[in-house]
Amino acid sequence: MASETPRSLQSDRTTLRRKPDRGAYDAATIHPILDEALLCHLGFAVEGQPYVIPTIHARVGDQLYVHGAVANRMLRVIAGGAPCCVTVTLLDGLVLARSAFHHSMNFRSVVVLGTASEVIETAEKEAAFEAIVEKVVRGRSAECRPASDVELRTTKVLRLPLAEASAKVRTGPPIDEEEDYGLPWWAGVIPLRLVPGEPQVDDRTPSGKTFPHDVGSARFR
Amino acid sequence: MASETPRSLQSDRTTLRRKPDRGAYDAATIHPILDEALLCHLGFAVEGQPYVIPTIHARVGDQLYVHGAVANRMLRVIAGGAPCCVTVTLLDGLVLARSAFHHSMNFRSVVVLGTASEVIETAEKEAAFEAIVEKVVRGRSAECRPASDVELRTTKVLRLPLAEASAKVRTGPPIDEEEDYGLPWWAGVIPLRLVPGEPQVDDRTPSGKTFPHDVGSARFR
Repeated sequence: MASETPRSLQSDRTTLRRKPDRGAYDAATIHPILDEALLCHLGFAVEGQPYVIPTIHARVGDQLYVHGAVANRMLRVIAGGAPCCVTVTLLDGLVLARSAFHHSMNFRSVVVLGTASEVIETAEKEAAFEAIVEKVVRGRSAECRPASDVELRTTKVLRLPLAEASAKVRTGPPIDEEEDYGLPWWAGVIPLRLVPGEPQVDDRTPSGKTFPHDVGSARFR
Repeated sequence: MASETPRSLQSDRTTLRRKPDRGAYDAATIHPILDEALLCHLGFAVEGQPYVIPTIHARVGDQLYVHGAVANRMLRVIAGGAPCCVTVTLLDGLVLARSAFHHSMNFRSVVVLGTASEVIETAEKEAAFEAIVEKVVRGRSAECRPASDVELRTTKVLRLPLAEASAKVRTGPPIDEEEDYGLPWWAGVIPLRLVPGEPQVDDRTPSGKTFPHDVGSARFR
């Protein structure tokens, strides 16, 4: 059901109250942030205590997938129908203002709310695995042994629909109080980037074999 | 009360059940991870729905501070005594195994559980502000205008004791199934680092003024 109308993921719960101009609710803003982030922070609660656990995610269309061992408590809790929250944050820069108060960060973040469910069907599970491996290094799923039946059985995959979400984005220079612009301090942005280093080959990789991808590619950013 | 005995932040709730060898509960492991992370993900729940929000934190001794506008809902909820969870994650590398299943990431993460309370005393509030600014760029608090009385009043600072926490750390090469080491695929680690770029001076900074710090310093990593 392709549609030209941008679909909004806004709800009352995902609406930004403070600095609403930094909020966005369309898939065209939200999906690329989810795709670029190499990990998410998944929130769930057990007996009123929230837990926030880092894990890798992958998006396929309007679904977000996370996975882990079948014994994993987080997955057990959220597969059981507990509401959860998936948040990703890309840190783009440090914003240094003339006043301590207006220091800030440039970032792109997404918050997804919802209820996850376990993926039972093998084909969907395999597709989620592939999306997770491809997310890390494009092309990698064809360059390693696929999951065996036992590995598939001992891994739980959960699907969270991207139906209720928001993005928050800050860009640009510091915004100081007008009367502070005369102060003598340096002000501006220190950009930050997650940068891949030289691949460190495993001791047991056949000698002479080099990493078959460009680590400087956009995949890592 | 200085003590030579390493204090443990372990509790039943912070004990790692899976891969327990990756867990640590001592301040000597936990504090440097909190200090290096430029942002945390703060989890809280409202009517059973968990929310996970990125924000900056700073540690002073055994206390973790977060701050925000007085109208900020997250701070209002957790200052009201709701249990919260602060998680930081440093991504150190992509771990590429010979099997899709054993792909992993090298990382250092910390999960802190507890209940926060609002900082009322001005001196502690100012110290928390300073710690937050110094965390981003060491020396910066002396190179900008300090918070005014109004700015202090309109900012809420919360203190979370570092009493119940865990660290989780993965390092090293992929660990494959013994029978997979003969496979022809490249395997190893792609290190990842958060790297500062060239400072982008604000248009209204006096011309000729350069950023007075080494952006390549350890502060950013």
